[in-house]
Amino acid sequence: MIPNHIRRELSVKTPSKIVFLILDGLGGLPAGADGQTELERARTPNLDALAAKSALGLSTPLVPGLTPGSGPAHLALFGYDALEHNIGRGALSALGVGFDLGPQDLAARMNFCTVDQAGIITDRRAGRIPTVLNERLCARLRAEVQLPGVELHILTEEQYRAVVVFQGPGLDDRLSDSDPQHTGVPPQAIAALDPAAARSADLANQFVTQAQRVLASEHPANMVLLRGFATHPSLPTFADLYKLTPGAIAVYPMYKGLARIVGMRVLGAAHSVAEEFDLLQEHWARHDFFYLHVKPTDSAGEDGDPARKAAVIEEFDALLPLALALQPEVLVVTGDHSTPSRLKSHSWHPLPLLLRSAYVLPEGRAGFSERAAARGSLGHLQHADVLDLAMAHALKYDKFGA
Amino acid sequence: MIPNHIRRELSVKTPSKIVFLILDGLGGLPAGADGQTELERARTPNLDALAAKSALGLSTPLVPGLTPGSGPAHLALFGYDALEHNIGRGALSALGVGFDLGPQDLAARMNFCTVDQAGIITDRRAGRIPTVLNERLCARLRAEVQLPGVELHILTEEQYRAVVVFQGPGLDDRLSDSDPQHTGVPPQAIAALDPAAARSADLANQFVTQAQRVLASEHPANMVLLRGFATHPSLPTFADLYKLTPGAIAVYPMYKGLARIVGMRVLGAAHSVAEEFDLLQEHWARHDFFYLHVKPTDSAGEDGDPARKAAVIEEFDALLPLALALQPEVLVVTGDHSTPSRLKSHSWHPLPLLLRSAYVLPEGRAGFSERAAARGSLGHLQHADVLDLAMAHALKYDKFGA
Repeated sequence: MIPNHIRRELSVKTPSKIVFLILDGLGGLPAGADGQTELERARTPNLDALAAKSALGLSTPLVPGLTPGSGPAHLALFGYDALEHNIGRGALSALGVGFDLGPQDLAARMNFCTVDQAGIITDRRAGRIPTVLNERLCARLRAEVQLPGVELHILTEEQYRAVVVFQGPGLDDRLSDSDPQHTGVPPQAIAALDPAAARSADLANQFVTQAQRVLASEHPANMVLLRGFATHPSLPTFADLYKLTPGAIAVYPMYKGLARIVGMRVLGAAHSVAEEFDLLQEHWARHDFFYLHVKPTDSAGEDGDPARKAAVIEEFDALLPLALALQPEVLVVTGDHSTPSRLKSHSWHPLPLLLRSAYVLPEGRAGFSERAAARGSLGHLQHADVLDLAMAHALKYDKFGA
Repeated sequence: MIPNHIRRELSVKTPSKIVFLILDGLGGLPAGADGQTELERARTPNLDALAAKSALGLSTPLVPGLTPGSGPAHLALFGYDALEHNIGRGALSALGVGFDLGPQDLAARMNFCTVDQAGIITDRRAGRIPTVLNERLCARLRAEVQLPGVELHILTEEQYRAVVVFQGPGLDDRLSDSDPQHTGVPPQAIAALDPAAARSADLANQFVTQAQRVLASEHPANMVLLRGFATHPSLPTFADLYKLTPGAIAVYPMYKGLARIVGMRVLGAAHSVAEEFDLLQEHWARHDFFYLHVKPTDSAGEDGDPARKAAVIEEFDALLPLALALQPEVLVVTGDHSTPSRLKSHSWHPLPLLLRSAYVLPEGRAGFSERAAARGSLGHLQHADVLDLAMAHALKYDKFGA
């Protein structure tokens, strides 16, 4: 990747447009008797024809062998050093419920749990209580817990999972978890991992004490566990680094949150992939960079359902001509990470990358797949290089040195 | 490579097993009229069949253009930054003669040399004295040289080459060499390159003075030259980084020493490649990582003998089914570095890497060679990535970030 100070120096504002079409968990492995990956199995006439006019490569999200979460994988794709700028779980959870995390906010993941009379944890997930109960309990906590000098935001995720955001000056995320990660012991006191975090630790412990009092009459969710304290990662924005005016199109809150973190404007409120392509057309004139996120490829991979993953790719392929018709100067199709159906989880595998521009060495051969990409003219690269390549192909970077 | 602090965080203990079969100096170049490399020339039906079910790639030991010694090449293969953690010559020599170098030991390479009446070096190798004479002189030095507060170990390598190990508290390797690297001048006084090494410099100079007195009556080996002062490199172990319980199988002492440095247990005492595979079977139940080192490929390359190098590869190929029958979750076949017969020495060339697991994109085409590997789906990678990839394919790394 190009160092940030050089990006700032070389990037220029131009009318050319870059589109990133990101299929979550795109990369796969042979998934059936025929030895084909989900992408190979999908009928993708539009992607295949596009591949012939594009350059292909295999991109490793971070480093070989590392399986990234969605946060680091996206940061890498947006050109950041995701090993250095890891986003804490609390911040990701807050972004995931659509909370607009500010630079002074401290977020933590909060699980409802069950403790016995002696305060020993008997179930870290409180029997996976229904989301409606979670919502009622969060409302009680919002009404009854108060901390000095801090505004509290208590937000339901789903089932037993929630988020708490402490808002106020001088908060610090160098805190240990109260969640001991196993049952048979009481929750741990939250400790400051740095002297500067002492007040934050005190506030977090006060929160837990008050929450326990509020929930004492409830069952099975009669206690909370906090973990993953995190503040806003404070990354340089796309405007700062690339002089771009970026727009983000996503269905799920977490991806909108990730886009906001790097300074993208979140566009509209799509509920399907088709609606996302509608938003792309609708907002075309107002941005020079678009990030469009397709979630269901990942969900199908996580469910171990190669046929459904292939079907999502086919749905995407059918919509692709709508993006091509807009004639972006640079079009990138890839994923944030691999989610092979065979593993039912994110994986470390590099994934296929397609880059279309007037300035590539075209593959000349139809086909977009892991295997075609492994032989592609872009070779093997890393996600943190992809946006630099897109900027270059959009003629948005000046020459370095004389 | 994944940074060490992230490896520690993500690695998990599981029952899956990883086997590294390392053919020393495996990589080659066209070596005869038919333009085939040693590996292409060898008949390797088992490797070829395995390649069809595996992923291939070309791996550069350290960085392009750098020819590594066995020490750095192995450290890279074990996942360390071998440019940063270079093992000093003294420590490598001590390991090479099978000395169990401890954390407080200071080792130096010692050459017997010839000086004239005025103390001027006339032959830095003392006429390449025979090893038996070296052994007799080392025995004299062991009997007659004594230093305060330090235990001395004086060990023959071969011909004029020996090792001296200073054992005691507070020793420091920031010392200059006494060997001026050319004749016509006297040996140099050993200087402390850091104030903390002053006592070590004094001890080393006392050693040289006493050795000169002992050897005064000998000829041509009437003096010693010391260079490459080095202490134990103190690398984090496999248990620490990877939560592995590693076993090492090698014939030559230096490779056993390298394995011990990273915390491997050296298994048995094999005298041939066949015996090494016997040890692999015998110790199978007790380790989750095995490093098996095959030396004669390198020796044949160093001798410029492509036919013999191919024959060693064929011998290895015939034994390979014994390893396959153990059904390791991950099997890696590669070398530490290239040793093309044409060069009769180590070289900088990347070398073929084969990785077999249930989670690779199989090549689908038989053949294991430099050329097949250059087109493999793993692409071009570096040795320091190989163990991370093996860990990932063995499902021994958790996800990074949420």
